[in-house]
Amino acid sequence: MTTPPVIRICLTPALYPIYRDDSSIVVVVDIFRATSAICTALHHGTTAVIPVAAIEEAKNYPGNGYIVAAERGGEVVDGFAYGNSPLSYRNNPDIIGKKLVLTTTNGTQAIYAAKDAAALCVGAFSNITTLTSWLVKQKKDVMILCAGWKNRLNLEDTIFAGALAHLLLDQGFVLDIDRDAALIALTLYEQSKENMNVFLEPSSHRQRLSKLNLEKDIDYCLQWDTTTVVPVLMNGELINIQK
Amino acid sequence: MTTPPVIRICLTPALYPIYRDDSSIVVVVDIFRATSAICTALHHGTTAVIPVAAIEEAKNYPGNGYIVAAERGGEVVDGFAYGNSPLSYRNNPDIIGKKLVLTTTNGTQAIYAAKDAAALCVGAFSNITTLTSWLVKQKKDVMILCAGWKNRLNLEDTIFAGALAHLLLDQGFVLDIDRDAALIALTLYEQSKENMNVFLEPSSHRQRLSKLNLEKDIDYCLQWDTTTVVPVLMNGELINIQK
Repeated sequence: MTTPPVIRICLTPALYPIYRDDSSIVVVVDIFRATSAICTALHHGTTAVIPVAAIEEAKNYPGNGYIVAAERGGEVVDGFAYGNSPLSYRNNPDIIGKKLVLTTTNGTQAIYAAKDAAALCVGAFSNITTLTSWLVKQKKDVMILCAGWKNRLNLEDTIFAGALAHLLLDQGFVLDIDRDAALIALTLYEQSKENMNVFLEPSSHRQRLSKLNLEKDIDYCLQWDTTTVVPVLMNGELINIQK
Repeated sequence: MTTPPVIRICLTPALYPIYRDDSSIVVVVDIFRATSAICTALHHGTTAVIPVAAIEEAKNYPGNGYIVAAERGGEVVDGFAYGNSPLSYRNNPDIIGKKLVLTTTNGTQAIYAAKDAAALCVGAFSNITTLTSWLVKQKKDVMILCAGWKNRLNLEDTIFAGALAHLLLDQGFVLDIDRDAALIALTLYEQSKENMNVFLEPSSHRQRLSKLNLEKDIDYCLQWDTTTVVPVLMNGELINIQK
């Protein structure tokens, strides 16, 4: 009899040192919008996404062969053509065959925090079913790491963690002994699944993005299964491992 | 027009440096069982509870005039007569007129973390209605600080935070701009309020306590409004301020 693989959930990068388990595959989640954007860019022809923590580091990449993107506080950083809007990468011929260098407020910071894990991949509603199948095949414990907002919890990443945990539990995964964060996320998912957009209306980042007229981005980020990419970190680059 | 007071929720002491707001009244919560025990002891005749972080510090208090109590991992520490079981303080003549020196795994650590707040009080289901009335009268912002379990989130403190936030919202309080932790707690409360004991069954600490045969403690800690004490920290001692 083999031991079933375990699901752990960490609701903000600030808690990662406490929940950390380097033998797990870490799934980094930043629904609004970094990990949604990464999946979209890889689906639409970017060959790799290079997550970098600092804006200065992003500036060092040459224009040739690279698309350089920076977001802070929900907006494209001055001097950059791209931020973390998934829609800016959809059906965009400029990104085809190029590498996307990306720095964002929360998502790329979370990737950086978990870079020493056994493996690191990226999750979003857009790839949730393919990602689940891929995780099942790896036969390893899974840590879902929510990017949150400036080290605070957020609602949308918590709900996604609950959704992914729900799918993995259906596939024979079990919860960790210290399971309360997972139980919280599962409850949030159950309560929101019928209409996530409405459930998320009072949330902080939903309101922040509404002020920036990013309603279309929000709708897009909440759509399930629009891609079959599974971005996995290899030598500092997120590559689509699911051919 | 005056600005309505704000509710903030911090789901574990590890996040307190991020959510911290020293102009707020901090309500420390450790439902299973430190803050429930503190309310019970004050209700049943203890004159003050002195929270201390370390076991060694608790040992320094003389037997005369003090009851010294220590809990770690759910159990009474060797060499101490008391831990954090509320039932051990109920109708117990030994504690009347004495001060209770208490060190616990999570609750007293959370009190220590928030000791520089504008005011610090202790909340439990046992005093939730009286506590709400008292907080309304203070006309200050409120930070609900969950003790959690070894810096992880736990379900029961999150639910209590949601219950208290629900009562305060009814009294004109509003949520903070960064409100997602509060929205999470409110959802958990809504889902669990009809039968908290059943809802909490899969939770980590509920299972930990069941193994230690502490079912009666669990039932007691989930009872609402068994006391009207409001323990407030003054010069390092929790005193009942509600006469």
